[in-house]
Amino acid sequence: MAVYTEVTDEALASFLANYDLGKVLSFKGIAGGVENTNYLLRTDKDTYILTLYEKRVAEADLPFFIGLMDHLAHRGFACPQPIRNRNGNALGHLEGRPAAIISFLEGMEISHPTPDHCFMAGVTMANMHQKAQGFSIERPNALDPSGWPDLVESSRARADTVEPGMEELITSELVFAQQNWPAQIPHGVIHADMFKDNVFFLDGQLSGVIDFYFACNDYLAYDIAVGINAWCFDDDYRFDQRACSQLLKGYQSIRPLEAAELAALLVLARGAALRFLLTRLNDWLNVPEGAFVVPHDPKAFSARLKFFRQSGSTVFDIA
Amino acid sequence: MAVYTEVTDEALASFLANYDLGKVLSFKGIAGGVENTNYLLRTDKDTYILTLYEKRVAEADLPFFIGLMDHLAHRGFACPQPIRNRNGNALGHLEGRPAAIISFLEGMEISHPTPDHCFMAGVTMANMHQKAQGFSIERPNALDPSGWPDLVESSRARADTVEPGMEELITSELVFAQQNWPAQIPHGVIHADMFKDNVFFLDGQLSGVIDFYFACNDYLAYDIAVGINAWCFDDDYRFDQRACSQLLKGYQSIRPLEAAELAALLVLARGAALRFLLTRLNDWLNVPEGAFVVPHDPKAFSARLKFFRQSGSTVFDIA
Repeated sequence: MAVYTEVTDEALASFLANYDLGKVLSFKGIAGGVENTNYLLRTDKDTYILTLYEKRVAEADLPFFIGLMDHLAHRGFACPQPIRNRNGNALGHLEGRPAAIISFLEGMEISHPTPDHCFMAGVTMANMHQKAQGFSIERPNALDPSGWPDLVESSRARADTVEPGMEELITSELVFAQQNWPAQIPHGVIHADMFKDNVFFLDGQLSGVIDFYFACNDYLAYDIAVGINAWCFDDDYRFDQRACSQLLKGYQSIRPLEAAELAALLVLARGAALRFLLTRLNDWLNVPEGAFVVPHDPKAFSARLKFFRQSGSTVFDIA
Repeated sequence: MAVYTEVTDEALASFLANYDLGKVLSFKGIAGGVENTNYLLRTDKDTYILTLYEKRVAEADLPFFIGLMDHLAHRGFACPQPIRNRNGNALGHLEGRPAAIISFLEGMEISHPTPDHCFMAGVTMANMHQKAQGFSIERPNALDPSGWPDLVESSRARADTVEPGMEELITSELVFAQQNWPAQIPHGVIHADMFKDNVFFLDGQLSGVIDFYFACNDYLAYDIAVGINAWCFDDDYRFDQRACSQLLKGYQSIRPLEAAELAALLVLARGAALRFLLTRLNDWLNVPEGAFVVPHDPKAFSARLKFFRQSGSTVFDIA
């Protein structure tokens, strides 16, 4: 079971008594979700996701996450809509955890996106950046370069047990990022984790984006750099120039990038690869006893990082 | 994630091409399921469960499990209905695993059943026993007393590390069961795992039974003995006489027990407690590295076993 917190039928009934969601037809724990416990809730009105927020999510951040989904959904962005209870609150408590109900989003992850899918992902990311404007809460990115030294320190001693040369890679890339990180490029609310499993497609069209629990304020182009890491490498970690070109084209069809953003993209892509390498490396080296989760392989991101390190910024030229 | 086998969208599309289930709207791995990988599949026609059978389930047993659900569902028993593909097969292969699609059953597990719920569980078990008659495949119970010596041997040396006195308990109870196991009481197809999580309720009524992957041919009264272990103890492992009385009344409202079955019930209840104690103990002592599953506490069943050991058979008197 990937359910971290069990919910009894009595606790569920008591929680739902304050909502107008109809009669419960079924309630099933969903696999996946490293951070939280998710249940699929079906009622005679509709289908919902009920999320219990576990320790890895700071309760103080929840108004940002829930508020952002609400802000975006109300502006027509295809993402889960937080459901308010009769008191107007979208955030409550269940089984001792903060809990929220959000609408269910149809669609499926694409395992092997084509350049067309990447174009749509780029369009959608730019739409999200634009529609997030005016959202009133701010949340700094805890995993920007200022957060990386701790992750390097906690993993460097054992890094080479995962892959030879890993310690040199993370320590030198940290220095590189610190020395070359851009200043004064456009910033705003970013998703910061728009990987393939968080983007759904239906009938070949992008149907929505989920999982805003890494969303934060940062450079908009950093989100693109995450997206390039997420969407533009194949199963063997080889860069896909066409996918990248289409992602950038899609994004720029909505919001053209400034020259300074394009110039910073390679540094940001190396930084994004380093960020996911570091969290994966820490998870890999510190799998807790009785863990529910198989950690992701850090080598997927050392490979990306090495690619960006040797590539020129021409990889981001739009063909 | 509790998903043991990931299914790509391409593999799913290829598998479903041979079914008439409509357009896929979503596909989510379900938490839970120690033995198998389960996905919730929603299409524009209906909702289904897609199961991939993992190593712990013998492929040779699948025609029994699938055939039994089919047999029962066609006789009006509320259980999942296996879905046949265009070739008439309900069993196929997906991602290198045997796989089947079954209908989705609405309802929810009751965390704390009342005696009324126990009555309904008894009724439903008896209905299952009757409707299973005429099912043509046989499957011996691998976890009857002949299967217990191996489980005792593989756990006895470390049993007392789980609970003092555990080794004496399992070794002496094994001997007791072997010497007192009944002969020549009615047998047939039993569920053998009708725990609370496998029985759904909706609007206070029993809506169906799931998970037939321990079903087998054995004494019908042994299924009742499993049910008493499953339904008639509270969270503190205290026996609930009224719950037990109602479960037996419910069962006998459909199929009255013979005198020999009633006389054997205490031995069978001790045996059922020992069977779940032994498998839980083995799972507890042998949690594999990187396990997805938190093993169930064996002490829940040593407590039941000790209760039955000291109780007289009057605990099964129907008040």
